Amino acid sequence: MKDCLFCKIVEKEIPSDFIFEDDRVVAFNDISPQAPTHILIIPKEHFNSLMDIPDDKLDIISHIHNVARKLAQDRKIDGSGFRVVNNCGKEGGQSVGHLHYHLLGGRQLAWPPG
Amino acid sequence: MKDCLFCKIVEKEIPSDFIFEDDRVVAFNDISPQAPTHILIIPKEHFNSLMDIPDDKLDIISHIHNVARKLAQDRKIDGSGFRVVNNCGKEGGQSVGHLHYHLLGGRQLAWPPG
Repeated sequence: MKDCLFCKIVEKEIPSDFIFEDDRVVAFNDISPQAPTHILIIPKEHFNSLMDIPDDKLDIISHIHNVARKLAQDRKIDGSGFRVVNNCGKEGGQSVGHLHYHLLGGRQLAWPPG
Repeated sequence: MKDCLFCKIVEKEIPSDFIFEDDRVVAFNDISPQAPTHILIIPKEHFNSLMDIPDDKLDIISHIHNVARKLAQDRKIDGSGFRVVNNCGKEGGQSVGHLHYHLLGGRQLAWPPG
Protein backbone atom coordinates (compact mmCIF):
# COMPACT_ATOMS: atom_id res chain seq x y z
CA MET A 1 0.00 0.00 0.00
CA LYS A 2 1.27 3.42 -0.92
CA ASP A 3 2.85 5.32 1.95
CA CYS A 4 2.89 2.28 4.24
CA LEU A 5 6.29 1.94 5.90
CA PHE A 6 6.07 -1.84 6.18
CA CYS A 7 4.89 -2.27 2.60
CA LYS A 8 7.98 -0.36 1.56
CA ILE A 9 10.11 -2.72 3.63
CA VAL A 10 8.37 -5.72 2.04
CA GLU A 11 8.97 -4.24 -1.40
CA LYS A 12 12.61 -3.51 -0.47
CA GLU A 13 12.10 0.17 -1.25
CA ILE A 14 13.46 0.68 2.26
CA PRO A 15 16.54 -1.48 2.88
CA SER A 16 16.10 -3.90 5.75
CA ASP A 17 17.86 -7.06 6.85
CA PHE A 18 15.32 -9.83 6.67
CA ILE A 19 15.78 -12.54 9.25
CA PHE A 20 13.22 -14.64 7.45
CA GLU A 21 11.26 -14.42 4.24
CA ASP A 22 8.85 -16.72 2.47
CA ASP A 23 6.04 -16.13 0.01
CA ARG A 24 3.69 -14.75 2.68
CA VAL A 25 5.70 -13.01 5.40
CA VAL A 26 8.95 -11.29 6.22
CA ALA A 27 10.65 -10.88 9.61
CA PHE A 28 13.19 -8.28 10.71
CA ASN A 29 14.53 -6.80 13.92
CA ASP A 30 12.53 -4.09 15.67
CA ILE A 31 14.42 -0.81 15.35
CA SER A 32 13.79 -0.10 19.03
CA PRO A 33 14.35 -3.51 20.64
CA GLN A 34 12.77 -4.14 24.03
CA ALA A 35 14.53 -7.46 24.63
CA PRO A 36 17.67 -9.26 23.38
CA THR A 37 15.46 -10.87 20.76
CA HIS A 38 12.78 -8.53 19.40
CA ILE A 39 11.65 -9.45 15.93
CA LEU A 40 8.70 -8.19 13.92
CA ILE A 41 6.87 -10.68 11.74
CA ILE A 42 4.61 -9.12 9.12
CA PRO A 43 2.51 -10.37 6.23
CA LYS A 44 3.55 -9.27 2.77
CA GLU A 45 -0.07 -8.45 2.04
CA HIS A 46 -1.23 -5.24 3.61
CA PHE A 47 -3.80 -5.40 6.39
CA ASN A 48 -4.22 -2.36 8.59
CA SER A 49 -4.57 -4.48 11.70
CA LEU A 50 -5.90 -7.73 13.11
CA MET A 51 -9.41 -6.27 12.80
CA ASP A 52 -8.96 -5.78 9.07
CA ILE A 53 -8.09 -9.28 7.91
CA PRO A 54 -10.92 -10.85 5.88
CA ASP A 55 -12.15 -14.10 7.42
CA ASP A 56 -10.93 -16.10 4.43
CA LYS A 57 -7.38 -14.84 4.94
CA LEU A 58 -7.15 -15.35 8.68
CA ASP A 59 -4.84 -18.34 8.25
CA ILE A 60 -2.03 -15.81 7.93
CA ILE A 61 -2.16 -15.55 11.74
CA SER A 62 -1.34 -19.22 12.22
CA HIS A 63 1.43 -18.92 9.67
CA ILE A 64 2.93 -15.92 11.45
CA HIS A 65 2.94 -17.90 14.70
CA ASN A 66 4.58 -20.84 12.99
CA VAL A 67 7.32 -18.51 11.79
CA ALA A 68 7.60 -17.17 15.35
CA ARG A 69 8.19 -20.73 16.55
CA LYS A 70 10.89 -21.32 13.95
CA LEU A 71 12.61 -18.04 14.82
CA ALA A 72 12.44 -18.88 18.54
CA GLN A 73 14.18 -22.16 17.75
CA ASP A 74 16.79 -20.37 15.61
CA ARG A 75 17.49 -17.96 18.48
CA LYS A 76 17.48 -20.82 20.98
CA ILE A 77 14.79 -19.17 23.08
CA ASP A 78 12.20 -21.86 22.47
CA GLY A 79 13.30 -23.59 25.68
CA SER A 80 13.81 -20.51 27.87
CA GLY A 81 10.61 -18.90 26.65
CA PHE A 82 9.31 -15.93 24.73
CA ARG A 83 6.29 -13.67 24.28
CA VAL A 84 4.29 -12.97 21.14
CA VAL A 85 2.39 -9.68 21.05
CA ASN A 86 -0.03 -8.05 18.66
CA ASN A 87 -0.99 -4.43 19.17
CA CYS A 88 -4.27 -3.52 17.52
CA GLY A 89 -5.29 0.12 17.35
CA LYS A 90 -4.36 3.12 19.45
CA GLU A 91 -4.88 1.78 22.97
CA GLY A 92 -3.17 -1.44 21.96
CA GLY A 93 -0.10 0.64 21.15
CA GLN A 94 -0.07 -0.07 17.42
CA SER A 95 2.45 2.34 15.89
CA VAL A 96 2.48 1.21 12.25
CA GLY A 97 -0.79 0.60 10.40
CA HIS A 98 0.31 -2.70 8.85
CA LEU A 99 -0.39 -5.89 10.78
CA HIS A 100 2.67 -7.06 12.70
CA TYR A 101 3.52 -9.43 15.52
CA HIS A 102 6.30 -8.86 18.02
CA LEU A 103 8.43 -11.81 19.11
CA LEU A 104 10.32 -10.99 22.31
CA GLY A 105 12.71 -13.14 24.30
CA GLY A 106 16.17 -13.51 25.76
CA ARG A 107 15.19 -11.99 29.09
CA GLN A 108 12.48 -12.53 31.67
CA LEU A 109 9.39 -10.75 30.36
CA ALA A 110 7.47 -8.91 33.10
CA TRP A 111 3.78 -8.68 33.95
CA PRO A 112 1.55 -6.87 33.12
CA PRO A 113 2.37 -6.92 29.43
CA GLY A 114 2.30 -3.12 29.17
CA MET B 1 -5.25 -33.50 30.62
CA LYS B 2 -5.20 -34.72 34.18
CA ASP B 3 -4.13 -32.11 36.71
CA CYS B 4 -4.30 -29.29 34.18
CA LEU B 5 -6.16 -26.30 35.65
CA PHE B 6 -7.44 -25.10 32.30
CA CYS B 7 -8.55 -28.56 31.21
CA LYS B 8 -10.60 -28.69 34.40
CA ILE B 9 -12.15 -25.34 33.50
CA VAL B 10 -12.91 -26.61 29.98
CA GLU B 11 -14.49 -29.73 31.46
CA LYS B 12 -16.43 -27.59 33.96
CA GLU B 13 -14.89 -29.51 36.85
CA ILE B 14 -13.92 -26.05 38.09
CA PRO B 15 -16.83 -23.60 37.79
CA SER B 16 -16.07 -20.64 35.57
CA ASP B 17 -18.19 -18.08 33.78
CA PHE B 18 -17.53 -18.54 30.10
CA ILE B 19 -17.72 -15.35 28.08
CA PHE B 20 -17.58 -17.42 24.92
CA GLU B 21 -17.65 -21.07 24.01
CA ASP B 22 -17.70 -22.98 20.76
CA ASP B 23 -16.58 -26.45 19.77
CA ARG B 24 -12.89 -25.53 19.84
CA VAL B 25 -12.29 -22.81 22.44
CA VAL B 26 -13.58 -21.21 25.61
CA ALA B 27 -12.98 -17.68 26.92
CA PHE B 28 -13.23 -16.39 30.47
CA ASN B 29 -11.99 -13.46 32.52
CA ASP B 30 -8.44 -13.55 33.89
CA ILE B 31 -8.65 -13.93 37.67
CA SER B 32 -6.01 -11.23 38.07
CA PRO B 33 -7.06 -8.66 35.47
CA GLN B 34 -4.43 -6.22 34.24
CA ALA B 35 -6.85 -4.05 32.27
CA PRO B 36 -10.60 -3.29 32.27
CA THR B 37 -10.95 -6.05 29.68
CA HIS B 38 -8.63 -8.99 30.32
CA ILE B 39 -9.92 -12.21 28.84
CA LEU B 40 -8.20 -15.54 28.37
CA ILE B 41 -8.98 -17.52 25.24
CA ILE B 42 -7.94 -21.16 25.36
CA PRO B 43 -8.35 -24.19 23.13
CA LYS B 44 -10.42 -27.05 24.50
CA GLU B 45 -7.72 -29.43 23.36
CA HIS B 46 -4.69 -29.47 25.59
CA PHE B 47 -1.43 -28.11 24.23
CA ASN B 48 1.30 -27.24 26.70
CA SER B 49 2.22 -24.11 24.80
CA LEU B 50 2.57 -22.55 21.37
CA MET B 51 5.66 -24.71 20.83
CA ASP B 52 3.65 -27.88 21.38
CA ILE B 53 0.92 -27.54 18.76
CA PRO B 54 1.36 -30.03 15.93
CA ASP B 55 1.68 -28.33 12.54
CA ASP B 56 -1.58 -29.85 11.35
CA LYS B 57 -3.47 -28.25 14.24
CA LEU B 58 -1.97 -24.78 14.02
CA ASP B 59 -5.18 -23.35 12.60
CA ILE B 60 -6.39 -23.14 16.19
CA ILE B 61 -4.26 -19.99 16.47
CA SER B 62 -6.18 -18.19 13.74
CA HIS B 63 -9.42 -19.31 15.31
CA ILE B 64 -8.38 -17.97 18.72
CA HIS B 65 -7.58 -14.62 17.11
CA ASN B 66 -10.92 -14.57 15.35
CA VAL B 67 -12.61 -15.10 18.72
CA ALA B 68 -10.44 -12.28 20.12
CA ARG B 69 -11.79 -10.00 17.38
CA LYS B 70 -15.39 -10.94 18.16
CA LEU B 71 -14.84 -10.38 21.89
CA ALA B 72 -13.19 -7.01 21.19
CA GLN B 73 -16.29 -6.04 19.22
CA ASP B 74 -18.58 -7.27 22.01
CA ARG B 75 -16.63 -5.17 24.54
CA LYS B 76 -16.57 -2.24 22.13
CA ILE B 77 -12.78 -2.02 22.26
CA ASP B 78 -12.28 -2.88 18.60
CA GLY B 79 -12.21 0.83 17.78
CA SER B 80 -10.18 2.08 20.75
CA GLY B 81 -7.71 -0.77 20.48
CA PHE B 82 -6.46 -3.80 22.33
CA ARG B 83 -3.46 -6.11 22.74
CA VAL B 84 -3.25 -9.87 22.24
CA VAL B 85 -0.47 -11.66 24.11
CA ASN B 86 0.83 -15.20 24.22
CA ASN B 87 3.34 -16.18 26.88
CA CYS B 88 5.36 -19.23 25.95
CA GLY B 89 7.58 -20.82 28.56
CA LYS B 90 9.22 -19.46 31.68
CA GLU B 91 10.81 -16.26 30.37
CA GLY B 92 7.65 -15.52 28.42
CA GLY B 93 5.82 -15.49 31.74
CA GLN B 94 3.61 -18.50 31.03
CA SER B 95 1.97 -19.42 34.34
CA VAL B 96 -0.38 -22.24 33.28
CA GLY B 97 0.88 -25.05 31.06
CA HIS B 98 -2.12 -25.01 28.71
CA LEU B 99 -1.97 -22.75 25.67
CA HIS B 100 -3.79 -19.47 26.26
CA TYR B 101 -4.00 -16.02 24.72
CA HIS B 102 -4.59 -12.85 26.71
CA LEU B 103 -6.88 -10.17 25.27
CA LEU B 104 -6.34 -6.86 27.04
CA GLY B 105 -8.05 -3.52 26.45
CA GLY B 106 -10.07 -0.70 27.91
CA ARG B 107 -7.00 1.34 28.84
CA GLN B 108 -3.88 2.57 27.07
CA LEU B 109 -1.47 -0.36 27.01
CA ALA B 110 2.13 0.68 27.70
CA TRP B 111 5.43 -0.22 26.05
CA PRO B 112 7.45 -2.39 26.46
CA PRO B 113 4.95 -5.22 26.74
CA GLY B 114 6.48 -6.50 29.97
